[in-house]
Amino acid sequence: MPLYFSPIELERFGKELLTKLGFPIRHSEIISKSLVLANLRGVDSHGVVRLSYYSDGVEKGLINPNPNIKIVKENQYFTLIDGDNTLGYVPATLATEKAISKAKEFGIGISGVRNLKHSGMLAKYVMQAVEEKMFALAIANASPNIALPGFKKPVVGTNPLAIGFPVDGSTPIILDMAMSVVARGKLLVASKKGLPIPKGWALNENGEETTDANEAIRGMLLPIGGYKGFGLAIVIDILCGIVLGGGYGLKIQRSWFSQGGFLIFVSKLDMARTYEEYLNDIREYIKEIKSTPVSEGTRVLFPNEIEEELTCKRMKEGVPLDEETFSELVKLAKKYSIKEPKAL
Amino acid sequence: MPLYFSPIELERFGKELLTKLGFPIRHSEIISKSLVLANLRGVDSHGVVRLSYYSDGVEKGLINPNPNIKIVKENQYFTLIDGDNTLGYVPATLATEKAISKAKEFGIGISGVRNLKHSGMLAKYVMQAVEEKMFALAIANASPNIALPGFKKPVVGTNPLAIGFPVDGSTPIILDMAMSVVARGKLLVASKKGLPIPKGWALNENGEETTDANEAIRGMLLPIGGYKGFGLAIVIDILCGIVLGGGYGLKIQRSWFSQGGFLIFVSKLDMARTYEEYLNDIREYIKEIKSTPVSEGTRVLFPNEIEEELTCKRMKEGVPLDEETFSELVKLAKKYSIKEPKAL
Repeated sequence: MPLYFSPIELERFGKELLTKLGFPIRHSEIISKSLVLANLRGVDSHGVVRLSYYSDGVEKGLINPNPNIKIVKENQYFTLIDGDNTLGYVPATLATEKAISKAKEFGIGISGVRNLKHSGMLAKYVMQAVEEKMFALAIANASPNIALPGFKKPVVGTNPLAIGFPVDGSTPIILDMAMSVVARGKLLVASKKGLPIPKGWALNENGEETTDANEAIRGMLLPIGGYKGFGLAIVIDILCGIVLGGGYGLKIQRSWFSQGGFLIFVSKLDMARTYEEYLNDIREYIKEIKSTPVSEGTRVLFPNEIEEELTCKRMKEGVPLDEETFSELVKLAKKYSIKEPKAL
Repeated sequence: MPLYFSPIELERFGKELLTKLGFPIRHSEIISKSLVLANLRGVDSHGVVRLSYYSDGVEKGLINPNPNIKIVKENQYFTLIDGDNTLGYVPATLATEKAISKAKEFGIGISGVRNLKHSGMLAKYVMQAVEEKMFALAIANASPNIALPGFKKPVVGTNPLAIGFPVDGSTPIILDMAMSVVARGKLLVASKKGLPIPKGWALNENGEETTDANEAIRGMLLPIGGYKGFGLAIVIDILCGIVLGGGYGLKIQRSWFSQGGFLIFVSKLDMARTYEEYLNDIREYIKEIKSTPVSEGTRVLFPNEIEEELTCKRMKEGVPLDEETFSELVKLAKKYSIKEPKAL
């Protein structure tokens, strides 16, 4: 049975912990809020569960808690930021702000961050731009865990992308997806429960498709659509790793907090038509698709609807944490002499 | 048994036919070359087989062969083109040229085309930019044929994207993919052969997964990665259909030559680092991934390698056309009093 926590209490805990780890208060706040936002949206893999990995990274000197974040290059539409090896949340938030302000002035803005660690759930950055009535696309690359059948080693990360469109007065469209068929977490869950996994999720160490969760954990994840998702993961690896210079997957040390680069593209939505025309059409679009005939029990959902529903639910009922995650947080509380998160 | 044709002979045929249909010679040339390029790359669904659909569209007054292509809007980085309801090849080629020239001057260029018909294989436009040592991403939207399980009607097109990176002195990386697990053509092939199709390709008219090719043809295609590919198809529909104003899938008349909009983004590759650094890294990247240990018989291939190999092969041996496609071309030749394509 999970325990439930108010988002504010989890934010308080994260902020205190990160501050003890050496992050400036303002950074601790941004990181902690982002983690809890992920929990609220049901993306628990990117929520407070990461705190113990992050503290581990800081202790080992692999994450810089007190960085000198610098703008390395800048022109009319582009900003390149050096994250000084800190967690990506703060530099990526800054990168997003820069891209938004350039887009406001100029129509579009592009920002990149290199020399950073994990920047968390990409939807967060895209939502930042969507709140300003803009389109955004964000990508990030990670260490390899995807391969195609026959490969004996993973060569590319799950390399997520997030894309967002504002919809006035209604749920914005926010797509946030990794290039693997399923997240690695699903293999871990199946393994714990002693259940097989469906064909098409993963490969074993020999590059053969497997339905054994433990074999899959030692093996690799399969990309969506075979060579298609594989190709998209490669594209993201090249953009973040090579074009920006953040380092590509095979050069990234495997850990729960590693990352190559972060890239965000932001654009105003009035380049071809007025923003009002855009808004009218997108409302009509959603309405039209929502009225598709479906079989009983099927819902027509746009990307972000489930996440918004969960956010409402969890704002009311609290964020559920499983016992394992909670006990990790309790350990951290003891170690850093802060108050453990109090359940509802 | 297929017949083989020299690419030059097919180009000659296409050009003459299109000119007879009323296209200016220069337009006929661009369209015909693009079709044959698709055949050379093995993308036969986008090759000369389309000529009979196009001539049909022109005859019915649905495609304008002699358009007044206009630049509707333009700024430092953006160009919006009105295709005057002609086939998309010429306006999309112009759009790509504009994006390249803006990128040369300014770093990036974005172009959109609306009011157009089919613009063919997207790889073509991306290759245009890659030849100029630039990164490119192109998208287009079409009438619906994708749905998720439980949907009784398709709501979004297979909406392809193509992405390209130059690799000096070697095969460039060109990813060109639709959001369906397989192309509709594969259902037709299975149906002709009386074979079942794998689970995961398509739905029947009731929105249930089917392995019956004929049911699938009357039904819908499944997207890659479930909601992921579905979400990407929606994103492309919104960008081309709503942001550009080309019309979204559900508004597009279903035909073999319909299209909503076309969008291309082109960028120089020296925004963060020098182009030489980019080139060095991407060569190293390809080498490193190519040396992944694989099981016997597995090849590590980057997007575009198979297509380049096929191009070499077909340049030498000719382009194979099945009897049905050839007999369609012969019919067109008779109807428009031009010389039918001569097999090798």
